[in-house]
Amino acid sequence: MTLAPFETVHVPLPGRAYDILIGGGLLASAGERIAALAPGAACGVVTDTGVDAIHGPALRASLDAAGLRHETIVVPAGEASKSYDRLREVCDGILAARLERGDLVVALGGGVVGDLAGFAAAVVRRGMLFVQIPATLLAQVDSSVGGKTGINSAHGKNLVGAFHQPGLVLADVDVLDTLSPREFKAGYAEVVKYGLIDDPAFFAWLEAHHRGVFAGGPDRVHAIRTSCAAKAAVVVRDEREDGDRALLNLGHTFAHAFERITAYDGSRLVHGEAVAIGLACAFRFSARLGLADGQDAGRVEGHLRTVGLPTRIRDIPGWDAGGDAILAAMAQDKKVKRGALTFILARGIGRSFVAPGIDGQDVRAFLDAELALP
Amino acid sequence: MTLAPFETVHVPLPGRAYDILIGGGLLASAGERIAALAPGAACGVVTDTGVDAIHGPALRASLDAAGLRHETIVVPAGEASKSYDRLREVCDGILAARLERGDLVVALGGGVVGDLAGFAAAVVRRGMLFVQIPATLLAQVDSSVGGKTGINSAHGKNLVGAFHQPGLVLADVDVLDTLSPREFKAGYAEVVKYGLIDDPAFFAWLEAHHRGVFAGGPDRVHAIRTSCAAKAAVVVRDEREDGDRALLNLGHTFAHAFERITAYDGSRLVHGEAVAIGLACAFRFSARLGLADGQDAGRVEGHLRTVGLPTRIRDIPGWDAGGDAILAAMAQDKKVKRGALTFILARGIGRSFVAPGIDGQDVRAFLDAELALP
Repeated sequence: MTLAPFETVHVPLPGRAYDILIGGGLLASAGERIAALAPGAACGVVTDTGVDAIHGPALRASLDAAGLRHETIVVPAGEASKSYDRLREVCDGILAARLERGDLVVALGGGVVGDLAGFAAAVVRRGMLFVQIPATLLAQVDSSVGGKTGINSAHGKNLVGAFHQPGLVLADVDVLDTLSPREFKAGYAEVVKYGLIDDPAFFAWLEAHHRGVFAGGPDRVHAIRTSCAAKAAVVVRDEREDGDRALLNLGHTFAHAFERITAYDGSRLVHGEAVAIGLACAFRFSARLGLADGQDAGRVEGHLRTVGLPTRIRDIPGWDAGGDAILAAMAQDKKVKRGALTFILARGIGRSFVAPGIDGQDVRAFLDAELALP
Repeated sequence: MTLAPFETVHVPLPGRAYDILIGGGLLASAGERIAALAPGAACGVVTDTGVDAIHGPALRASLDAAGLRHETIVVPAGEASKSYDRLREVCDGILAARLERGDLVVALGGGVVGDLAGFAAAVVRRGMLFVQIPATLLAQVDSSVGGKTGINSAHGKNLVGAFHQPGLVLADVDVLDTLSPREFKAGYAEVVKYGLIDDPAFFAWLEAHHRGVFAGGPDRVHAIRTSCAAKAAVVVRDEREDGDRALLNLGHTFAHAFERITAYDGSRLVHGEAVAIGLACAFRFSARLGLADGQDAGRVEGHLRTVGLPTRIRDIPGWDAGGDAILAAMAQDKKVKRGALTFILARGIGRSFVAPGIDGQDVRAFLDAELALP
């Protein structure tokens, strides 16, 4: 097989180091690469109905060509699949396929499939090998990297899960051509986030090259590679989020509150859109607190709007919640401790930091000003 | 509080070292010790209906005295609680109690409660602190040590779980006074196992001191301490059972088959009884294969019978399965690979070893001989 060129981000976790490959045509090489990782292993492919229809056949053909036995376990598309019931289904499906501890679980899909399949891989036979083939931009730059897996509980999102690192991540950029423009844009918000956290040069590069990222080709590969490398560096420093892994939550305290209030209704707001508004809010809030320059906040908002992302609470269709409701939704977030709120704020583009002990009154006043924006 | 003397087995796993305390009166000191381990932490106590009635009040009084907030989550007694549904109940119970990542899950009970609560502790918020207060002899010498946690699937026992080490194990030997004689005896089979694996002097000590172990006092503490130290040493060498942790399965390939055939019906056969018969079988099989001396097999059987444990398949009430059924049940065991069976066999008392590639025909002939015993 002729293999297309690709870039590699190596994640050097002690004892569990792995590679993230980023490039075109990687899906077709999956069988060969998995066989190299675990010779003769059987594969339990976990995917969702939508992704399976588009990409399932190519993955299975590749596994067949490499002589690997495989079974596919399909779950419904959507966040509702991150449930106890689906976890049981996937675990029992892996066991019914007679997969042993040395065999693999392969996640083919977006963040939901990756989180669910990764958690199943963490617990079936107390831990199986795991390969991620992320099929959305969001999954390629965020959820497939770093080993966080899990499901939702009635008490909140991602509250039950495991840290379970993959043995390999194949980020096939061609797969992203099958995403809707809305889905691609949503993932792009997380790409922008990496620039805003600590890489102002990358943010400036995105301002100049976003058309190339959306069009595909080398610019897209560069944006994904840079994002994965940024996330991997944070994860290696702080795998279990005891410290600065929290920076990855830039924009997310706002975003989670918006998602909670819209009841995770993807027709109104998907995660990446919530993050885009959250990033803009984090910078405007930082400016209001006198930490960052208003010009930086304007630049952040300007770039997000240029690519067609929402940046204001009023951009959310049918929004009718007030400042109190938003503050209450934030207080449910796990990053809230004993009344004081922890935010990720910024002293400028690429200069974000963890800010504990933010006064609820200041947040409330900021939210009122936000809701008064057109 | 006056603390009674106790012995300590330190388990030096890198980064996750912990102590097993063995002695009388430890339950009453639980609050104080947990507060020392995690100052100010809240506790989710997981227990079963039977144990809660006897020991729950003492544990709660101790937690209250130490000023620790606590909530109790009670599951039905019995193996059926190692299920997906109970896992969900326990996880959601921990979350409903508003326990955070720095708080603790405390397992008060036998192996079922320890395995279930430990698994919940491993996955709620992707990992919480965990304290074991084992309430059966079996749990004190076996399941509470080593970090294996999990639930059963329709496809088999313990097939879904995690390696999650406790931060502290409190083995209160006085708690064992509330066990039925049958339950205590069953746990004693696992104590005998440690002598048979690699400690002939301990086996000889048990032959001489078993009355003291059953009566309580220093001999009981010594037997439990020696067992925990033996298991801890194996776990430190091979936490994830890639190698000689398998020795801990001495007698268990037989035992699991007997349990499967009796459908895990504890009124006919409990795990420790199955292990006793399995240990006797492992030695008689070793003798038949010319590996061990028939005298050693006789000594093993003799000691088990002296304390009132079963040693022969025909000792199982209502037994009616033939050699083929036993062999088939063994073949379902996860320690079976590609037709060849792996057994833990012995060259003598205290000289056990992993024997892969045992011929099914030899096993079949041995089982026929066993079934022909009176």
